[in-house]
Amino acid sequence: MDYLRRIGLLRRRLTKAGLQGLLVTHLPDLRYLCGFTGSSAALAVTRRAARLFTDGRYTAQAAEEVAAAQVQIVPGSPSVAAVQWLAAQPGVEFAGIDPAWTSVADLARWRDALPARLRRRFLSILAAPLVEPLRWVKDEDELALMIEAALVGCKLFDHILGFIRPGLQEFEVAAELEHQARLLGAEGMSFETIVASGVRSALPHGKATSARLPRRGFLTLDFGVILKGYCSDMTRTVYLGKPKSGERNAYQAVLEAQEAGVAAVGSGVSCGDVDEAARGVLRRAGLAEAFTHSTGHGVGLEIHELPRIGAEQTTTLLPGMVVTIEPGIYLAGQFGIRIEDMVAVTRTGGQVLTPAPKALIEL
Amino acid sequence: MDYLRRIGLLRRRLTKAGLQGLLVTHLPDLRYLCGFTGSSAALAVTRRAARLFTDGRYTAQAAEEVAAAQVQIVPGSPSVAAVQWLAAQPGVEFAGIDPAWTSVADLARWRDALPARLRRRFLSILAAPLVEPLRWVKDEDELALMIEAALVGCKLFDHILGFIRPGLQEFEVAAELEHQARLLGAEGMSFETIVASGVRSALPHGKATSARLPRRGFLTLDFGVILKGYCSDMTRTVYLGKPKSGERNAYQAVLEAQEAGVAAVGSGVSCGDVDEAARGVLRRAGLAEAFTHSTGHGVGLEIHELPRIGAEQTTTLLPGMVVTIEPGIYLAGQFGIRIEDMVAVTRTGGQVLTPAPKALIEL
Repeated sequence: MDYLRRIGLLRRRLTKAGLQGLLVTHLPDLRYLCGFTGSSAALAVTRRAARLFTDGRYTAQAAEEVAAAQVQIVPGSPSVAAVQWLAAQPGVEFAGIDPAWTSVADLARWRDALPARLRRRFLSILAAPLVEPLRWVKDEDELALMIEAALVGCKLFDHILGFIRPGLQEFEVAAELEHQARLLGAEGMSFETIVASGVRSALPHGKATSARLPRRGFLTLDFGVILKGYCSDMTRTVYLGKPKSGERNAYQAVLEAQEAGVAAVGSGVSCGDVDEAARGVLRRAGLAEAFTHSTGHGVGLEIHELPRIGAEQTTTLLPGMVVTIEPGIYLAGQFGIRIEDMVAVTRTGGQVLTPAPKALIEL
Repeated sequence: MDYLRRIGLLRRRLTKAGLQGLLVTHLPDLRYLCGFTGSSAALAVTRRAARLFTDGRYTAQAAEEVAAAQVQIVPGSPSVAAVQWLAAQPGVEFAGIDPAWTSVADLARWRDALPARLRRRFLSILAAPLVEPLRWVKDEDELALMIEAALVGCKLFDHILGFIRPGLQEFEVAAELEHQARLLGAEGMSFETIVASGVRSALPHGKATSARLPRRGFLTLDFGVILKGYCSDMTRTVYLGKPKSGERNAYQAVLEAQEAGVAAVGSGVSCGDVDEAARGVLRRAGLAEAFTHSTGHGVGLEIHELPRIGAEQTTTLLPGMVVTIEPGIYLAGQFGIRIEDMVAVTRTGGQVLTPAPKALIEL
């Protein structure tokens, strides 16, 4: 990862925002900028320097992971130390903080830690985030990792198809999936695995329970791995037994919506238009009410990033963004269906990163 | 779980704080108060009512999980809807918000959503948290779950002892542990599993990597499960092969420190005194510098809760609190050792919830 390049890009944005310094406390932002993967740290960036503050548990790890910033081990709060360091840098009049990742309590604590003359004006609340927009557009190193993470997801889906059978408990399916994920090199899952069978498939977020897979019914699997920090995210809905024609038609409608969403992805396209491409298909199938969430979201170091692919979202897709396309329908007491791929925006359209089959699989 | 009792206890605290309403957005707080386990919600509590706001993905789940509060499904932000609802309740002049779990951005958004006359004064930043202190002291239902979660941890440790052998990769050990955890009913792990072998044991947070277990050396396993929402947390350090006498002595020192920490736990004891009980043993063994973190932390619905068992912490332990006692030493380039139990504070002392062996195991 070219951390120096990223910090360089950040500095340009910093200058544009009229700031001489920035405090970064959101851990994925910090990992993106300097590679540190610990759980407690703050990064201070000025036009000339970048310094990572962390605690004694991470002395060895920070030395190993971080080359693009100086490392300082502190006994107390890393973020307080970072604020005080920023305030002591010559030429730093204002340091930006990101209001989305700063708690009201932290802001008060940081202000209290400043010299009285700086307390009111030194910390400048950013009007727009500075680091995250960099992260939304993946560089080549990141895209390579995300392709790898998505392929691990596909391998897991292929594996689990041979494991699924009626009578298994949902959590046994999740256990098998997660075990294989680890053996394929994942650090963990990017969110709590969803295994929702039968009527439970009508729960959009039906985490795996002790419910047993039915002889006949839908089974939704929504899962992702974390591979070298990057998240994958995919959903497939399969059928146990033989679907009725109504179920088959519903599946077909979701599949068409999903494919329309994927086809709409492209550089310069608004997120709202991608959402509408998928949503329109379900509306025309009389299923608008059953599609209760947005079509997708950005993904990367975090499982949910911007942009949001939702109704009337005006954000424009840019090459390098990676988003999910995941329309679904949920009919309470009956069944639910969702199909999800990861798609990278390219100069000429969208590249699907999730090459697992989407035609209805009957098991 | 007796949610009505919890909301009743909260109302008493609310009245004491001179508030008529409270906005709860921290998800573990919200789960504690009403049982909702979804990922997006806000709970508004007044002296007369409690109302949970969530989005359309959770219609069925909220109806199933939540009885102690009314449920309202909203199209936009649940927290904005909750703030507006609070402001519309007769007799509610001030509603508290918790600065530790409110971002600067959210606070601005909530204020903007209020009628102009209420914008400046309606939301009252709490001087001290109201919900978390309730959570620090576990009720009987919670203690039963935490005992169960800790026992699953012990079973996993017992299982993994039969699996460990030189040459395995650390992540294979983590995979096996996590797979068994799922099969024993865990929803997931309470944090990224630490499997740190050989010189890597000197990393306090050495997550499992592709490093291979050595023929001779320490192996630290730090892991926890989530069982019905409650986290377990335990650490054992074992030895592959035959330890040198220096290694054996170091282990013995950590074990004595850990046992001294456990023995110090009791109702009315300050957290600083518990820390000192463990730290003093290591200081007298000449290992003070190698013990780079605090002795422990509260645990419950979250893996890290208050109180913090650290130097000079004046918080007093109360019956029903559950804390970890986990001193460790880290000698860079050589090895590390940590031993950790969960301990429940009782009226008469401390009850160890982690009955796995602690004498040095040689494999």
